[in-house]
Amino acid sequence: MVNTLWKMGFAVMRAPASGAKIRKADYPDIVAIKEGKVAVFEVKARRTLGHIYLEAEQVKKLKTFAQRAGGIAYIAVKIPREGWKLIKATELTETKGGRLKLSKEEITRAPDLKGLLTDLGLTQDLEKYLSSKSKT
Amino acid sequence: MVNTLWKMGFAVMRAPASGAKIRKADYPDIVAIKEGKVAVFEVKARRTLGHIYLEAEQVKKLKTFAQRAGGIAYIAVKIPREGWKLIKATELTETKGGRLKLSKEEITRAPDLKGLLTDLGLTQDLEKYLSSKSKT
Repeated sequence: MVNTLWKMGFAVMRAPASGAKIRKADYPDIVAIKEGKVAVFEVKARRTLGHIYLEAEQVKKLKTFAQRAGGIAYIAVKIPREGWKLIKATELTETKGGRLKLSKEEITRAPDLKGLLTDLGLTQDLEKYLSSKSKT
Repeated sequence: MVNTLWKMGFAVMRAPASGAKIRKADYPDIVAIKEGKVAVFEVKARRTLGHIYLEAEQVKKLKTFAQRAGGIAYIAVKIPREGWKLIKATELTETKGGRLKLSKEEITRAPDLKGLLTDLGLTQDLEKYLSSKSKT
């Protein structure tokens, strides 16, 4: 995902390895910036497609980071065969237990990385990106 | 520095620990973002004030990252008693050997972290920051 975002023209930074305790508390997994447009990601890779549950506290920190940056917070889910799916952190459903749920259906119909450029108002770049892809 | 930037209202991300080889190649030491304004930093802490030499390749990567992000690239030098000094990567002098030099004098007269808000066009925030500091 870091490489793809870089190819799309973003400056991309990955957080310190997930072993470090401080990281989980404070940073998104990935921050991508292009022309002052910012996207921050919590990354979830899954071998099989299923519902995903997230800690409310964790998502809150992701949203705070995005808010300060003036950007958009996403949960990026990698699913088999289809690749990355992006769900905005604001669109998560809270469960009775206080966790946040991302259903299998929501994941399936979520936009892929191209949707990111639209969300960030970088649609001119989207056209460029798509035309460069079709050439290769 | 991460904490200070956070207090100034930035979303701040530190790069993976410097042990990781990939980090040195690809990422700035610190990325700070506020309301879509981006600053990226190569950090140099020094016990004593002296000239600092930087690898041209390293600085080039810092500048590339900043350019993609639509932000400003800085060398942040911590010097005894005075704290952080910020020098824009574009202001470095190239030496005959191809490295980049930051003289003791340049470091001494460089602005501190408050200068950052001015550079990024966040001067309204600067006033707020200063008035909150004078109250504490």
